[in-house]
Amino acid sequence: MAFPAPGDKAELESGSTLSPKFDAAGLVTAVVTDATSGEVLMVAHMNDVALDKTIETGQAHYWSRSRGELWRKGETSGNTQTVIEMWVDCDQDAVWLKVEMAGPACHTGERSCFYRRLEGRDGKVELVQSGG
Amino acid sequence: MAFPAPGDKAELESGSTLSPKFDAAGLVTAVVTDATSGEVLMVAHMNDVALDKTIETGQAHYWSRSRGELWRKGETSGNTQTVIEMWVDCDQDAVWLKVEMAGPACHTGERSCFYRRLEGRDGKVELVQSGG
Repeated sequence: MAFPAPGDKAELESGSTLSPKFDAAGLVTAVVTDATSGEVLMVAHMNDVALDKTIETGQAHYWSRSRGELWRKGETSGNTQTVIEMWVDCDQDAVWLKVEMAGPACHTGERSCFYRRLEGRDGKVELVQSGG
Repeated sequence: MAFPAPGDKAELESGSTLSPKFDAAGLVTAVVTDATSGEVLMVAHMNDVALDKTIETGQAHYWSRSRGELWRKGETSGNTQTVIEMWVDCDQDAVWLKVEMAGPACHTGERSCFYRRLEGRDGKVELVQSGG
């Protein structure tokens, strides 16, 4: 499936056509939350192929900026993401995936990539590991 | 506050020091959720100044890529975001803000920028406006 080129502002914001606004690197941002808990699990990026394959298969696919390649989440780790719902934002440069996560989302073994909270201490900021 | 340069992989992932990994454009991705409902409200970007001001004031600040300027969310609309919690991801190139939102988050007047769901129909994808 090829995506149509983004239309004007009104079409982008109000239309019923998915016409992703890929950035200069050909990517949109993907926010991934746990469909049950609502927790933000990770932020990743999709090129047109990753977005297409995610829609087609219902399994989350991303573009790895560091490795420069397409990957299906969990293809090596087994920690797959089954898409329950998918949403797009107003200007269509970001998507939100609600997923059923098999195992931890983070390569570190944490359930979510967001496992450290910013905490102010004596006018400085520290990262504090979550209890989860 | 100046942020220290990102350390090696171990420091980035396990350390208690916030050392954001800004991209080539000097930005990190910010995911914003409603601290009460958990809903994803928007995705935006922060440069070092926006991140610093957000931490310092507790009010969300972003870098507008389209206008090329710093903005405090709500400075013209009144729809401010008071930060309740702030988290950083494993490689410190994304932050997650849980906010108390005053009014709608989206410039379109929708509560969230993610007001359209992808729905498959006859092998095609359509965007369907949410009921909210």
